[in-house]
Amino acid sequence: MKALYFDGSLSIKEMPDPVPARGEALIQVLAAGICNTDLEITQGYMGFNGILGHEFIGLVVECDNPFLRGKRVVGEINCPCRNCRYCRMEMTRHCVERTVLGIQGRHGAFAEYLCLPEENLHLVPDSIQDETATFTEPLAAAFRIVEQLSPSSEDKILVLGDGKLAQLITQTLWLYSKNTICLGKHPWKMELLRNFGITAVPFEKYKGESADIVVEATGKSDGLTHALQLIRPEGSVILKTTCYEGSPLSSVSAVVNEVKILGSRCGPFRPALEALALGTVEVRPMISEAYALSDGVRAFSRAKCPDVMKVLLHMR
Amino acid sequence: MKALYFDGSLSIKEMPDPVPARGEALIQVLAAGICNTDLEITQGYMGFNGILGHEFIGLVVECDNPFLRGKRVVGEINCPCRNCRYCRMEMTRHCVERTVLGIQGRHGAFAEYLCLPEENLHLVPDSIQDETATFTEPLAAAFRIVEQLSPSSEDKILVLGDGKLAQLITQTLWLYSKNTICLGKHPWKMELLRNFGITAVPFEKYKGESADIVVEATGKSDGLTHALQLIRPEGSVILKTTCYEGSPLSSVSAVVNEVKILGSRCGPFRPALEALALGTVEVRPMISEAYALSDGVRAFSRAKCPDVMKVLLHMR
Repeated sequence: MKALYFDGSLSIKEMPDPVPARGEALIQVLAAGICNTDLEITQGYMGFNGILGHEFIGLVVECDNPFLRGKRVVGEINCPCRNCRYCRMEMTRHCVERTVLGIQGRHGAFAEYLCLPEENLHLVPDSIQDETATFTEPLAAAFRIVEQLSPSSEDKILVLGDGKLAQLITQTLWLYSKNTICLGKHPWKMELLRNFGITAVPFEKYKGESADIVVEATGKSDGLTHALQLIRPEGSVILKTTCYEGSPLSSVSAVVNEVKILGSRCGPFRPALEALALGTVEVRPMISEAYALSDGVRAFSRAKCPDVMKVLLHMR
Repeated sequence: MKALYFDGSLSIKEMPDPVPARGEALIQVLAAGICNTDLEITQGYMGFNGILGHEFIGLVVECDNPFLRGKRVVGEINCPCRNCRYCRMEMTRHCVERTVLGIQGRHGAFAEYLCLPEENLHLVPDSIQDETATFTEPLAAAFRIVEQLSPSSEDKILVLGDGKLAQLITQTLWLYSKNTICLGKHPWKMELLRNFGITAVPFEKYKGESADIVVEATGKSDGLTHALQLIRPEGSVILKTTCYEGSPLSSVSAVVNEVKILGSRCGPFRPALEALALGTVEVRPMISEAYALSDGVRAFSRAKCPDVMKVLLHMR
């Protein structure tokens, strides 16, 4: 099969079709999205070499459960050992032996086929188109915030950033509190949110009162500093940015204001699929360009450009 | 009255006796403790000029409530406006207009007299000696962690640091979980904890598994980095250190491991007084030296030395 492979540089490689291990399904990939994490991996993050990609939709070709065969699925990306301390604590996403699709110890989705444990798979309702379904994984990461904080309709929420993940987070939290504001940088990206009736203002123009919840999703190392300036005492800052270099933390303001800072990574797929099926979160305006898998290297170079948001790959 | 005054440098000054505002009590200070925050203020922290000191015990000389007159009291240090957004949210310790005894907008306890709102005062049980009672305020800061996290007897807890606050925190959390370990640096300080049957090991020798709760109380800017290396995924790091310069935060490990980082400042006086009255927390071994108020400058220079822990001032 063809695959987009990273080993210090990116290239399309011809590779043997993967063979599912026990309990795994073989999945024919239909489409996949390029995520900022993929771009960071090509800068050295996670030290991963292999087939990239973890946001996908596919068709189940082979698996033990006959009900799944031929079905369209999306898949959770963390594959746990079910045996370590954290698996026994039911924190399987934090399994110390885990492999992660296209990120750690496991080939990813920018290929014609991939393998994942059957238990990682979720059926995709017919009402969700392929391209839309590729957003399930990042949208689940937005719903992780809901899982962590249970935001109420009273909460004043600020989302820092207007990129792909920040947009999904803003739309998601806006379902819980209409007092959710995106503090962005790029007029055309903020406009996408305003089209849904969501308030988006340039970060440097915001002069409102401090927030109950601030989500740091800028992808920049100074995002945490800004978040700490905008959060109220005893408020919660959600950290989504994984900056390779690390961020400076003003411990004075964090301690004196008794701020909670919560790291936040992967989330639950079910509410993400529900939101996509019901259209309560709308992702299609975020799709900038789509390429065939064979054009994957070019797709990556485009995904890095400031004038695009989501770049998709089509596998057939 | 005599007072230890800071205005860029420390000196004993003769000042007029303070006059209590409405609702305030006039208190004759009996004894007071020098805290690291006091030392930091003399380095420029908080930009405070005035009489230092916020850990004290005193006798009520004048107040509206006749029951309080002549009684021994300790006092909460934050004086709220009762009117701002945070006061209305019952977060009076975070009042935006607050004054703080000896730290912000209000003269402190290193003097013969001080004023505090009556509602800030707590009676000191007869079983608590004056010197012991000066520890109520920092011990309350240790109990703040209990308020924030409700630690259980199952929790594995690491306290980083073996200084005055770290010792109070270790003793306090050990009441909740015998699986509490102090990771220290100074053999003689760790020995104080071992005398209570509490495990204290040099930080660099600790090779145990990661903890459910890590308390960063080193007073050093690399403490947060170490805390993030020792915390388990989804564990809680309590930040007690207010480093003037700020600390680097590895956002990768905080995000990927979904760590909670909680700033923690002042705490509840009642459990602190109960622990001192019952002897469940033992503070006398931490007292290194005591000086008369008139020797306050010398007391400060001693409090900075690595061979002392708590230095007290006696006002009469």
